[in-house]
Amino acid sequence: MINVAVLGFGTVGAGVAEVLEKNGALIAGRLGEDVRLKYILDIRDFPDSPFGHLVIHDFSLIEQDPEIDVVVETIGGASVAWEYTRRALAAGKHVVTSNKELVAVHGAGLLQLAREKNVNYLFEAAVGGGIPVLRPIQQCLAANEIEEIYGILNGTTNYILTRMVHAGVSFGEALREAQSLGYAEQDPTADVAGYDACRKICILADLAFGRELPPEQVPTEGISDIALEDVTLVERAGWRVKLLGRAVRGVDGRVSAYVAPHLIHERHPMAGVADVFNAVLVRGNAVGEVMFYGPGAGKLPTASAVVADVIDAARHRTKRKEIGWAPWDAAAAGDPQALPMRLYLRTAAGRARVEEVFPGSEILAEAEEIALITPRMARCEAEKRAAGLRPCAKLCVLG
Amino acid sequence: MINVAVLGFGTVGAGVAEVLEKNGALIAGRLGEDVRLKYILDIRDFPDSPFGHLVIHDFSLIEQDPEIDVVVETIGGASVAWEYTRRALAAGKHVVTSNKELVAVHGAGLLQLAREKNVNYLFEAAVGGGIPVLRPIQQCLAANEIEEIYGILNGTTNYILTRMVHAGVSFGEALREAQSLGYAEQDPTADVAGYDACRKICILADLAFGRELPPEQVPTEGISDIALEDVTLVERAGWRVKLLGRAVRGVDGRVSAYVAPHLIHERHPMAGVADVFNAVLVRGNAVGEVMFYGPGAGKLPTASAVVADVIDAARHRTKRKEIGWAPWDAAAAGDPQALPMRLYLRTAAGRARVEEVFPGSEILAEAEEIALITPRMARCEAEKRAAGLRPCAKLCVLG
Repeated sequence: MINVAVLGFGTVGAGVAEVLEKNGALIAGRLGEDVRLKYILDIRDFPDSPFGHLVIHDFSLIEQDPEIDVVVETIGGASVAWEYTRRALAAGKHVVTSNKELVAVHGAGLLQLAREKNVNYLFEAAVGGGIPVLRPIQQCLAANEIEEIYGILNGTTNYILTRMVHAGVSFGEALREAQSLGYAEQDPTADVAGYDACRKICILADLAFGRELPPEQVPTEGISDIALEDVTLVERAGWRVKLLGRAVRGVDGRVSAYVAPHLIHERHPMAGVADVFNAVLVRGNAVGEVMFYGPGAGKLPTASAVVADVIDAARHRTKRKEIGWAPWDAAAAGDPQALPMRLYLRTAAGRARVEEVFPGSEILAEAEEIALITPRMARCEAEKRAAGLRPCAKLCVLG
Repeated sequence: MINVAVLGFGTVGAGVAEVLEKNGALIAGRLGEDVRLKYILDIRDFPDSPFGHLVIHDFSLIEQDPEIDVVVETIGGASVAWEYTRRALAAGKHVVTSNKELVAVHGAGLLQLAREKNVNYLFEAAVGGGIPVLRPIQQCLAANEIEEIYGILNGTTNYILTRMVHAGVSFGEALREAQSLGYAEQDPTADVAGYDACRKICILADLAFGRELPPEQVPTEGISDIALEDVTLVERAGWRVKLLGRAVRGVDGRVSAYVAPHLIHERHPMAGVADVFNAVLVRGNAVGEVMFYGPGAGKLPTASAVVADVIDAARHRTKRKEIGWAPWDAAAAGDPQALPMRLYLRTAAGRARVEEVFPGSEILAEAEEIALITPRMARCEAEKRAAGLRPCAKLCVLG
């Protein structure tokens, strides 16, 4: 019998309780023992919930209960969640979380603490919600040098960009729609400014390249400046606009990472990733390119990943899984401005001027303004030249 | 130090040697010990290969060498490979394979033998080549009741179907092209008749539903009868033709499986899977739909999955991974003809007759012939009614 305590009875916490209840018999069959939800820690009471009788308000009951094997942290943020996670690990309990902020910012220290206490700290649900991503990268691609990893890591922004294409509405209108459907927060900054995608690409890079990448080191651009005009124009030319987090390992072993909206060609497997879905593509030196696709958020999908980690923690109770990465090292970090890249530009500068500044460009459309894709060159060089064209729109191009 | 013997120095065997060599330092770092390729068993000698000095011709040297921890079987087929696999397991060695035929036909017995000998029998590379599929299904989706699984499981047929669309060539012409590129065998039957996809959907169903599904129980249709006319016509109407292996768990828990070409809507995430790429979609009762995409074959991609299994076997040397399924039971099998489905039909019967037989059909094109998609109903019922229209073409429709 595995005893579990859930911290935080919000959407994901409630989903974990529901999955443990609904699929309990099946999980017990696969694991060879029962998984029992013993406590739910929250500030509030939930008298109407079928799990209301499990709700407690004092974390020390969990910390001090020798029966509790696994603590599931679904509080979010990096304050209370950080304290409780440290205390749970220090008390010798395995911890499973969906909290990307905590893992991105304090993951290295928490994994170190877990190592000292010989317990597991697992966080599959922190990236890509229900999509299996972190474990496949670590286990199934273990024979590969990872060369690059990128993804559509935020469902809210992908929903907004999809609506701009499919419904022909502006960014602001699509955002209000997302808010009314509960896909976007009332303060949507963390999503639309790219901060959420930034935390996720950091966690992916930590694992894939074995070295900490702190979010504040990652240049991050959001989608709020994207004009409907550009989304529509590039769509007609066979491209989609997607917000990507991307990390690339250079031949010198240095890793360059950034978050920015990109043009993706319609024949790329990620072009069809619509609405709130996420996808992560990994390029390894043996496997080539593999992609993982699915629901990047949501109550039951996220709970699916959390409960899989609970099962994995139980299976590795005595022999913990070795997960970790080296500390941040500025000398090991590459410069994302030096990555070779093509840029999309829309400019009122004339054709002759465009061909002078970017000979060999691909012209997507031409009227009063020209929309073009530059040839491939170091991003800083492309940006420098582009400035001379005073572009009204500028976006990265994938590939 | 982990000592490995590779059986069969064909494409995949050579890829395994190459990956162990190229990424050896990295693998040793991740695993915490070296992996050494000690023997390569083959009938032939390879004097010009950098691994030529490892080649031996007598399996009993491997069987009797107490240093050998892991045997990699890349012989293929179910005769010699079956014998050597049994002898290796019986000798207490972990076995890793890319051999889908052997796993689909004899997997249950070999897993039983592995259990008795307390060793691992792992076969990630047998489905989807380099794509992580089997391990994510078992571990990352362990909290889910799997409801459905389907995929583009054969790269050769997907290449042919992609060429028919993109180059406008007939099946025969696309096949000859695939043969000249080495994507199709000189005798392409196993691929184009769907047998290869059948073995793979059987392995996926074995694992996802926990019960053996023998290939001979799975109705299997290939792609050789598909006319360019239909591929082109449905493309214009927003559909793609893909060969799918599909297994569905009914509400009564019975599993129905079949292999057949399907129309897939262009907005489906699998519609963009082109050329020799594969993809597997899994629907779980918590996670919803997740998809895995990547190279379904090839030297290094397949070797990537094989070597990941070697690493996993090494990690689970003392505590083996519990993998297995219940024996085939006709009473637990569903009838694929009873699955609700829409059919695509092209027929010279007039509009009035079509509307009489299938009221509410979606008409894709209308000239001398009508191309339509029927409403959803049990497949046997749709087939019965369709016979009355004497269709010149008939295909399944996904969704």
